[in-house]
Amino acid sequence: MTTPRQAVPLTKAYLLLNHGPVTLVSSAHGAQRNVMAASWAMPLDFSPPKVAVVVDRHTLTRTLMEQSGEFALNIPARSQASQVLAVGSHSGRDQDKFEQFSLSTAPGAHVAAPLLDGCVAWLECKILPEPTNQDRYDLFLAEVVAAWADPAVFSEGRWHFPSDDRHTIHYAAGGHFFATGEGFDVV
Amino acid sequence: MTTPRQAVPLTKAYLLLNHGPVTLVSSAHGAQRNVMAASWAMPLDFSPPKVAVVVDRHTLTRTLMEQSGEFALNIPARSQASQVLAVGSHSGRDQDKFEQFSLSTAPGAHVAAPLLDGCVAWLECKILPEPTNQDRYDLFLAEVVAAWADPAVFSEGRWHFPSDDRHTIHYAAGGHFFATGEGFDVV
Repeated sequence: MTTPRQAVPLTKAYLLLNHGPVTLVSSAHGAQRNVMAASWAMPLDFSPPKVAVVVDRHTLTRTLMEQSGEFALNIPARSQASQVLAVGSHSGRDQDKFEQFSLSTAPGAHVAAPLLDGCVAWLECKILPEPTNQDRYDLFLAEVVAAWADPAVFSEGRWHFPSDDRHTIHYAAGGHFFATGEGFDVV
Repeated sequence: MTTPRQAVPLTKAYLLLNHGPVTLVSSAHGAQRNVMAASWAMPLDFSPPKVAVVVDRHTLTRTLMEQSGEFALNIPARSQASQVLAVGSHSGRDQDKFEQFSLSTAPGAHVAAPLLDGCVAWLECKILPEPTNQDRYDLFLAEVVAAWADPAVFSEGRWHFPSDDRHTIHYAAGGHFFATGEGFDVV
C-alpha cells in the first residue's frame, strides 16, 4: 500500500529537514534506480527551497544523480530503521536494492527518482550543478521542486509524530540511532 | 564555572554533528565577538574532518567569520534552549550577546572564537575559502582543527546523555524544539 501523502508548500519544505533527521537518497536514470542512506543532508535556503547533501563518489547513487540531474530525499520513520541500515550498507551495483530489501515505491511528480513507501516525507530535488563542490567535496546542492508528507505525521508546518513507529530518526554510527524525542517550546 | 571538556579525536569529530543537532556558531575578530544559532550545519568529511554551515550574509557572525577565517560550532544542551532562541533572535550589531544574555565562555585551542560554557561539545573550525559558495549560497565549508566534548555526555565515540537537561536538541521552527530522543540499535 502506498503511504498517504499530501503536498507540502515549497516555502515550508525546509521544515522537513530542519531538525536533522537521517535521509534516504533515491535516484533513477534509464533502467537503473537506487537508494542509499545519507545523514549529511541539510536545508540550504528557504525560498526557493534548496538542500545540500554529501554523496560519495564511489556510489551508484552518485552516478545516477550525475546522469539524471535529479534525486529525492526520503525521510524514513523509526519502523524503517533496519531498512536505512541495510540500504546504507549494500551497493546497488551488486543488486537492485528495492528488490533485495522488498522496498515498494511510488512515482514522484517532477523527478524520475522513486519515492519510498513507508517514509514520512519526501523532497523531490533538481541538482544545481556546482562541479567544484561535487568534485572536491562530494557535495551536491539542489533545488526542491516538490515536497510531500504523510499528513498524519507532518501538516500545517508542524510535526505530529502520532506513534512511536512514525517518529523520524537520527543516525549516530555503528547501527545506533536516536528517535526524534520530546517536543518542547521556548517562549 | 567552565564546563568540563575532553579532546575528541579528530577522526570522531563528525559524530558530534551526525545526528543533526542545532548548533551555535561563535566567532571573534579583533575586539568583536558574536554567537548565533544555526540549524543548517552538517559534517562534510571524516578525515580530515570538515563541516558545512549556512550563515546569512546580513549577520555580524558572517562578517567576523570572513574577517577571521575561523569559527566554532558549539553544540548546546536542552537546558540552553532559551539561550539558543535568544541568540538566534537578536543581532550582535546592537549589543554584545554574551553580555546581554550572561553567557560565559572559555578560549579555544586553535581559533579566536570563544567556546560557550554549558554546551556539550565544541568544534573549532578553519574556513576553506570557497567564494562562490559563500557569495551564491551563504554556504561555508571548513576544516575541523580541534573537537571537544563534556565527557559525561560524549566519550569513546558515543553519546551518553546522563540527564534530560544534557540532551542535545534539534530545532523545528517558531521556538519549537525536539530533544534528541531514545537511542536504539539495529543489528
